Amino acid sequence: MTAHVAQPAEPVCLTQPAEPICLTQPEGPVCLAQPGGPIRLARRMARVQPSAVRDLLRLGADPTVTSFGGGYPDAGLFPLAGLAEIYREAIAESGRETLQYSVPEGISRLREQVAARMAQDGMPTAPDEVLILQGGQQGLDLAGRMLIDPGDIVITENPTFLGALLAFDPNEPRYLGIDMDGEGMDMAALEAALVANPTARVLYTVPDFHNPAGVTMSLARRQRLMELANRHDLVVLEDAPYRALRYEGVAPPTLRSMDTEGRVIHFGSFSKILVPGMRLGWAVGAPALIERLGLLKLAADTQSSTINMVAASRFLDRFDIDAHIVTIRDAYRHKRDVMLAALRRHFPQDIGFTEPAGGMFTWLTFPEGFDAAAFMRDHALPEARVAYVPGATFFPVEQRSNHARLSFTTNSDADIERGIAALGVLLRARR
Amino acid sequence: MTAHVAQPAEPVCLTQPAEPICLTQPEGPVCLAQPGGPIRLARRMARVQPSAVRDLLRLGADPTVTSFGGGYPDAGLFPLAGLAEIYREAIAESGRETLQYSVPEGISRLREQVAARMAQDGMPTAPDEVLILQGGQQGLDLAGRMLIDPGDIVITENPTFLGALLAFDPNEPRYLGIDMDGEGMDMAALEAALVANPTARVLYTVPDFHNPAGVTMSLARRQRLMELANRHDLVVLEDAPYRALRYEGVAPPTLRSMDTEGRVIHFGSFSKILVPGMRLGWAVGAPALIERLGLLKLAADTQSSTINMVAASRFLDRFDIDAHIVTIRDAYRHKRDVMLAALRRHFPQDIGFTEPAGGMFTWLTFPEGFDAAAFMRDHALPEARVAYVPGATFFPVEQRSNHARLSFTTNSDADIERGIAALGVLLRARR
Repeated sequence: MTAHVAQPAEPVCLTQPAEPICLTQPEGPVCLAQPGGPIRLARRMARVQPSAVRDLLRLGADPTVTSFGGGYPDAGLFPLAGLAEIYREAIAESGRETLQYSVPEGISRLREQVAARMAQDGMPTAPDEVLILQGGQQGLDLAGRMLIDPGDIVITENPTFLGALLAFDPNEPRYLGIDMDGEGMDMAALEAALVANPTARVLYTVPDFHNPAGVTMSLARRQRLMELANRHDLVVLEDAPYRALRYEGVAPPTLRSMDTEGRVIHFGSFSKILVPGMRLGWAVGAPALIERLGLLKLAADTQSSTINMVAASRFLDRFDIDAHIVTIRDAYRHKRDVMLAALRRHFPQDIGFTEPAGGMFTWLTFPEGFDAAAFMRDHALPEARVAYVPGATFFPVEQRSNHARLSFTTNSDADIERGIAALGVLLRARR
Repeated sequence: MTAHVAQPAEPVCLTQPAEPICLTQPEGPVCLAQPGGPIRLARRMARVQPSAVRDLLRLGADPTVTSFGGGYPDAGLFPLAGLAEIYREAIAESGRETLQYSVPEGISRLREQVAARMAQDGMPTAPDEVLILQGGQQGLDLAGRMLIDPGDIVITENPTFLGALLAFDPNEPRYLGIDMDGEGMDMAALEAALVANPTARVLYTVPDFHNPAGVTMSLARRQRLMELANRHDLVVLEDAPYRALRYEGVAPPTLRSMDTEGRVIHFGSFSKILVPGMRLGWAVGAPALIERLGLLKLAADTQSSTINMVAASRFLDRFDIDAHIVTIRDAYRHKRDVMLAALRRHFPQDIGFTEPAGGMFTWLTFPEGFDAAAFMRDHALPEARVAYVPGATFFPVEQRSNHARLSFTTNSDADIERGIAALGVLLRARR
């Protein structure tokens, strides 16, 4: 129920440019040693440091380790034959267009298709309310740049998606993390935080199958969130990459569908429903906001890959992506069930885990005082050859060491069973 | 429309430029009207406004207009058969890897190949000194974020590449533009500017076949530039997307090849030597700088497209890209000759134009007082059905109206001749 306000990692006043001093801040130096003397970097680089996720992506590459760490989709489900043919055709038939520059906001056919899919999900959307992105991550980066001045307060769930923190950090916000329960963000805590921090401007949330926590925001909480957003004049960034991956129950409406004031930007992605290697996502929102995001997109990378946009569009035209999503859902539902059953069977009773109705993750809560990072380094990896993501890195303010995120999407049933059993043996032995 | 200047919600104490040499005041609103009331954007959005290039990209799409505007390569030269087969194979043979996530710095084989190409060009480069980018534009965006604090002085050629200004603008620099002659940036003017502005930290240059000016920096100027960079502690951003497109003469060495102090970051691109629609470029530089750019890349878009990186890498392995570049060079050399001959034949004597030894552009200088934008709007477009880029937009500080950029790469010989002749008739009639 507590709200955590981050203290800025450094004084909020910028150094005078006339002062040629290399800052060294608690989080790390912003000068780089070079043969000709140190190179001073921009102040924001004090907030851009190597992260645990980068090392973990490398760790996952060791084939002798069973990794529950990465947030990867199961490549065994990729529609390879269809995509191979689509790419070949798109180049052979119209390569002079599909390999040329196009436009920063994305090719119009794909914008129409995304708009139609949003409408099916309760969000009537015009094509000019759609911006095609280089993956959903780019949306967080562009939105952060559009909205956050140094020192601004950004509200997130506590814990929250690490990629969002990475995207927002260079804009030097202060974070305010709101705890969750099984229905998502605690609205009483949010309201108290907004009253105490009237200048808060941006709220970031993953309402469906939260990364890392695996919980979904209830309808009542969504309604309350929008009331508070309207009253306190927040821009809401609704990050929904897992929304289509629901394994049971009925989807509550999106925040964007409840937005009467043009203050929600909704982000989606092809990474989890098609493939991540094309790097395609989208933002939908009020045209004025989408236009500004498009200007930042033009400045950031000119446009997304034309050939990949054309390939995604042709896939949507020629194949039934909803049928493909059913296949993915069936596969992941089964994997989730295998993992939850293994957790019930092998883990000590005092370790909690969430039971996600969709998405890719379950979130472990160990007893107070347990250090999930140290346990992974000293026991899980060397003794069980099992990796996960220690939870501390997902907390925007005060890191809590007694959590971990497990992904259930990529391993075989046998590896899930073996890995969780091996962890369970170690956990019981440690206590 | 009211112009709202963002007041930081917190007392942020941003630096005021000590000496507002080149600062253009924000003109547009940084609040967006929405049904629930205005949404305040970050202060940097005052520097992110719709640009002429965006409208021009649209204009070029009108098939009844002969456009010398866009900086597009000739799609007729794209190696379509090879790429169609490579994409099909890459997906059919190893789609589980080529369509999956990979790593933010780029797949290792492509980094090796780029490093080898840089070494061939006089820049011994290790793979960990290469960052694969979402096009060269992303390199400018990431470098700007890494290096520029609000109020910092960034030195560019005068005029300079518009995309660089778009990329740097959100970081709120002050620009200092250095005039060029036929040998590139004026080094006496650069030295005087550095002495007068000792806090200048970043220098951006397009030394080869400058965009928009079409000139190449001489060897002596390059040596002098590096002396000044070392003495005045500058980071040099060397933007070289056209470097391989040399139509005659011997290439002077790159700035990066002369860099003994790790202060040059060199940017290249596949857009002009392969295709732009894959959105692939690279940065090479000192490992510490490349690592920081990689962290910003991870935050910005996770990684470049895996399938596109694999396709480019396979193309380099299976085809002779240098032979392909010779084909492109032969074609563009011919187009350049057609355009320069047409300019000599049809334009009044008092209109100057550069004679580029490579690249894609020639730069027109009209007599003082001529307004190239008004002439295009009132005469060139409606009367001759010809478009170009009015030059004012390429000036970082004081815009000069009597210039225009012409691209010679995409039109047929007949269209170049017809378009330049039609412009010539109008220009003679106006005077």
